[in-house]
Formats: sequence, structure tokens, C-alpha cells
Amino acid sequence: MSMPSETRQWVLSNKATSLPTLSGPSPTFTQRTAPLPPLDSDRLLLQTLYLSNDPAQRGWISANIDPSRLYTTPVEIGSPMNARGLCKILKSSAKGWGEGELVLATCGWSEYVVLEAAKCQKLPNLEGFDVGITQFLGALGLTGLTAWFGIKDIAKAGPEDTVVVSGAAGATGSMVVQIAKHILGCKRVVGIAGGEEKCKWVKEHLGADACVDYKSSNFVDDLKKETEGFVEVYFDNVGGEILDLMLTRVKRHGRIAACGAVAEYNKDNAQGYGIKNWFEVVSNRIEIKGFIVLDFLAQAEEATKELVKATREGKIKIDADNETVVETRFEGVPETWLKLFEGGNRGKLITKLV
Amino acid sequence: MSMPSETRQWVLSNKATSLPTLSGPSPTFTQRTAPLPPLDSDRLLLQTLYLSNDPAQRGWISANIDPSRLYTTPVEIGSPMNARGLCKILKSSAKGWGEGELVLATCGWSEYVVLEAAKCQKLPNLEGFDVGITQFLGALGLTGLTAWFGIKDIAKAGPEDTVVVSGAAGATGSMVVQIAKHILGCKRVVGIAGGEEKCKWVKEHLGADACVDYKSSNFVDDLKKETEGFVEVYFDNVGGEILDLMLTRVKRHGRIAACGAVAEYNKDNAQGYGIKNWFEVVSNRIEIKGFIVLDFLAQAEEATKELVKATREGKIKIDADNETVVETRFEGVPETWLKLFEGGNRGKLITKLV
Repeated sequence: MSMPSETRQWVLSNKATSLPTLSGPSPTFTQRTAPLPPLDSDRLLLQTLYLSNDPAQRGWISANIDPSRLYTTPVEIGSPMNARGLCKILKSSAKGWGEGELVLATCGWSEYVVLEAAKCQKLPNLEGFDVGITQFLGALGLTGLTAWFGIKDIAKAGPEDTVVVSGAAGATGSMVVQIAKHILGCKRVVGIAGGEEKCKWVKEHLGADACVDYKSSNFVDDLKKETEGFVEVYFDNVGGEILDLMLTRVKRHGRIAACGAVAEYNKDNAQGYGIKNWFEVVSNRIEIKGFIVLDFLAQAEEATKELVKATREGKIKIDADNETVVETRFEGVPETWLKLFEGGNRGKLITKLV
Repeated sequence: MSMPSETRQWVLSNKATSLPTLSGPSPTFTQRTAPLPPLDSDRLLLQTLYLSNDPAQRGWISANIDPSRLYTTPVEIGSPMNARGLCKILKSSAKGWGEGELVLATCGWSEYVVLEAAKCQKLPNLEGFDVGITQFLGALGLTGLTAWFGIKDIAKAGPEDTVVVSGAAGATGSMVVQIAKHILGCKRVVGIAGGEEKCKWVKEHLGADACVDYKSSNFVDDLKKETEGFVEVYFDNVGGEILDLMLTRVKRHGRIAACGAVAEYNKDNAQGYGIKNWFEVVSNRIEIKGFIVLDFLAQAEEATKELVKATREGKIKIDADNETVVETRFEGVPETWLKLFEGGNRGKLITKLV
């Protein structure tokens, strides 16, 4: 096979302050073709096979905070959009990295990319554990680890606790529900998700004790009913109005793990939802902890083993049902990513390049 | 002296949703005269000498949360307004409680009151420590303990930390500033207060390294300047807009002690300030803990000793400068209390009944 000398990329062309757009006078992303750098020593030429789609990426474009306060370096205008991916090594100048091998890499929205081998990860050897490779971008990747460390180390959920999880049908939330219910043995797990179908899946497939549909006109009453007596733990993936409501449903001395705020990512600060129920935090001695999974990488290997063990024991399900895989040509990468904000995907949204 | 058989009281007549009012068709409080109950056994007939005025009392009338979610029983319509006070025993049917003695009691806005002796506290014996008795309602009472446990046990401030304190010239804030700077040895203490005079006092009398005037048109820039490089700890007495701003000034892995929200107490939820900078909590892994001093009563005696020791050693100042004592006849009790929300008092606002 002849090696590519250039690659198509989707670069950031405008820092959207609302929902990113692909058309009009200020499209958020623009496709271009760029030459690939030479394969210097200890480098890999990679072909992107799958891309991870994460609400967090929205913040890498522009967040409602000063860029210096973001937990990672924002994407610059003119640079390829940042993303994790699953790639195939086309050519290697790094010892121990063979052509044809699959690696996890921060490849961005590029068809091909040249990266230092040291910045790529080989897929873990799971001793015959039969799992779709895309799970390493989701349930067995940073997404699953976000759920694991968030519910276990940040929220410290345990058998005495009733846990509410927002975004319960999403990539992180669906793992939180399972870990809380089936690994940590929480007394009761209540999901919040959008639409009857998702709620049904959260209950029947993931095993939540209840799941409340935030799109229902009865949402507030339904949530109150399912959190009667109040709850010890709230795992927040969404921020905004649901967080504000949950401040009134967390028990005295309860805990909130602040994982994300997908409801707010496409709003600038002026449009953003303002949290009103702050006095609940004082009056009910609520403890809130923000967290980013990147702080837990040193324990990632051990945690992944725990997740695999629980899956093998049948406690939790890591399977194709946990993913929404969208096949697309390279042209469709941003459009697929935007589905994150339509609330359509169940579990992890994966782009498969074809 | 002939014993009173009845008492004047200020009772709650309407649950204000904005600033309490003393006039108009729906005054918040109404004065009445009520008979005193008989002096059954183990009871004290008390005369109220001083009343403690606390922003927290506003929440006992009506808070922006469901009454069942308040940390204490709200005051009922028709009941005397609740308050802590310093009282003189006029008559006692309780062994060990002598007439003429001074006690701390939850006497409410009543000129006289009959209470169980077991629910009153004698003034601590401080072995010759010369301090104004009203300090037992403030710096050496629940106010000082709020500051102590909040900055020490909740925020866990120490020598490595820069600490920002809002309401820094107020009863709690002025103690937080001193404890942080002179007992815990925090690296840098920055107050936020209203007006140049208060800011000067926070710096020169209390020893803060800086104090930012939130009434100044340069407030935001001044605060940014004084928190350059961001801060480890924020002690929040005010909530609302200043809290929202401080979310952008707390360092990665920083801590917020959520003590009160005086900026919001006189607003209903619709008028209330909505906090917009929530994503800072996630991105910067901020830890927020609400707290109520009532959770720490078991350690109160020990903490009071520590405060007295630090005062004796000259580390902190507990003196008349820490208090604003307003002399009034009983008719003026609510009017004096309302000064809390005018931002006029420096340190603890005390009502002296004359």
C-alpha cells in the first residue's frame, strides 16, 4: 500500500458560542487537506478508524469560562478539532509498535495523522475478554473511567445510598447506573433520561430501579415521587435546570458529583441557566465536588480490570447495546458529532469511518 | 420587685417574600402583649437585655426553599420572632439557677419569657478573661463558632492557602478574617466588604492583606487583581453575584465553604440571582461544602477556649470594635434587626433593650 502524504482534516474555523453549525457565514468547522509531517523517529503514521464523540469536546471549542480556566488546552482556530480515536498503524518508526496494530490516540478529526508513539496507547490485553474494540473509546475507556471514579471516589456511593443519575442513557450515565446498582450495591438507583424509550432501557437493560423522563410534562412531580425522602447522592452530567431541581432533592449531608453540564454547553453565559436553589447547599450541608477523569489516570488500569471483572461476572453489561455507532465517510464527522446535542444517541456515540 | 405577668412580643404576622416591612397592609411583624405562662418547676422567668441579630433569622421567616428543607423549624405566623438573647433571671424554680444571673437563651423577640432552665446556658467561666458580655452573642457565641468551624473544619484553610472572605466586615466574616490570618496562619487573606470605611477596618483592624469594595465600580477588576493566580479557599457569606464571580477566582482543586447567602435572603426565587459559572466547578474540580454551625455544638466549648486563648495572646481582637450595639426600646426591635440588610453594621449587630 502506498503511504498517504496528506490528509483530510476538519479544522476549527469559528468558536461557536451557541450550537456549532456547519453552514452559513461562520461555520464552526471547515474541511481542508493538509500535508502530513515526515515520519521522524519514534513516530507512528496512523489511519483513524473510529472517533469518540463526547459532550466535553464542546468545551474545547469554547466554554463559558476563561480559556485559562479550562481543564485542557482549547482547540485553536485553524487547528484540527481534537478527539480521541481508535487508529491503525500504517507505518512505524518506533520500536515495539508494528504496522497493522490498533492503538488509542488523540488523533483529532484527521483521516491520517503522525503522532509520537509515546503519546499513543496499545489496547489492553484483557486475557481473552471478548469485547468490541470500540468499547475502549467508551465503557472501557475514559467514559467508563469517568463513571467509575465519579460515582465511587467522588460521590463515594455505597449500599446505604439512593443515587440519582442524570443523562442516565448517555455514555457516562449508563455506566454510572450500572456501577452504582450492580458493583457498589447502592440501595436504589434512579435515572433521569429523555424520552420513554431511553427510560425503559435504563430500567430494563441497565437495571435502574426507576428512570424519570425529563421530557415529560410530569417530570417535576415524577422526580419528586421517585426521590421521596430525598437522596444521598446525585451524579450530575447535565447542569442547568435539572441540577437546580436536584438541589432540592438531595438529602441533608448528601453529595453531588459534578461531572458535566451538557445542558449548558451550547449557551453563552447570557443565555445560560442560572442556578437559583443555592441556599439548599447551605441549609442541607450539601457537598459538591467537581471532577475530571484526567486526575485519575494513574489508577486507570486497575479500574479497567475491575470493570472487566464485573462484566465477566455478569454484573454489568458492556456490549453493543451500550453504543450508538454511526458509519460515515470523513465528510460526515462533524454532523455525526452534533448528534450528541440532539439527545438521540443511547450510550456512547461512536463514529466509524468508512 | 413585682414580677411581670405579661410581656410584650413581636410576632410574625406575614411571611415576607422580599425585604420584611413594618408598615403597610401586610407588616411582617406585629407587636402584641401576651400573658406569661406560670413558672412551673425547673423553669426561669427571664428579662431580655440584649438580642442577637443574624441574617440567618431571615430564613426562619421564609426561605427560598421548602420549609421542610430548612435546617431549623421556621417561625410560625402568630408566634414570637425567634432570636438568641442575653437575659437576666428574674425568678427561678430551677435548682442552681439564681435570680440576677445572666444566661444565654433562645428568648425570641419578647421582653420577658419563661423557659426551661435546661434550654438556657450559663455564661462560660473564662477565668478572669475581660470581655464584654455581648461577645457571647457574637465572637464568643454561635457567630464566632460559625467562623471557626467553617474556615478550619469545612474549608480546611492553612498556611499554604490564600483565602477570600465575603461579608468580611460582618459578624461572621470579621472573625473568619482574623482566624484565617492570625490563628491558622493563612498565606494571604482577602476580604470583600461594602464601602471604603469597612474595607479600611478589615485591613487595618482585622489584619487582612487586602479588602475589595464590592460597591466600587472597579470591583470586578479589583477582585481579579487581589486574587491574581487564583485562590485556594473562598468563605462565602453572601451567595448571589459575588459567589458567581468567585467561582471564576478559585484555583484548581480549591474549596468553598458555603456559610450563607445574605445577598439573596430578601428575594423570592423568581427575583433571585441565578449562578451561571457552574462549569467552573467541574473544570476546576472545585469542592463546595455547605455547613451549619449547629452540627458542631459538641466541640463548641473547646473551640471557645481556643478563641479566648488566641485573644489573650493578642492574636485576634474580640472587643467592642467587633460589635455595633444599638440601644432601643422594645418597640424598636424589628427596626434595629432590619439594619442587617442595609449593610450598615460593622461586626455583630446587637440590640440593647433600654
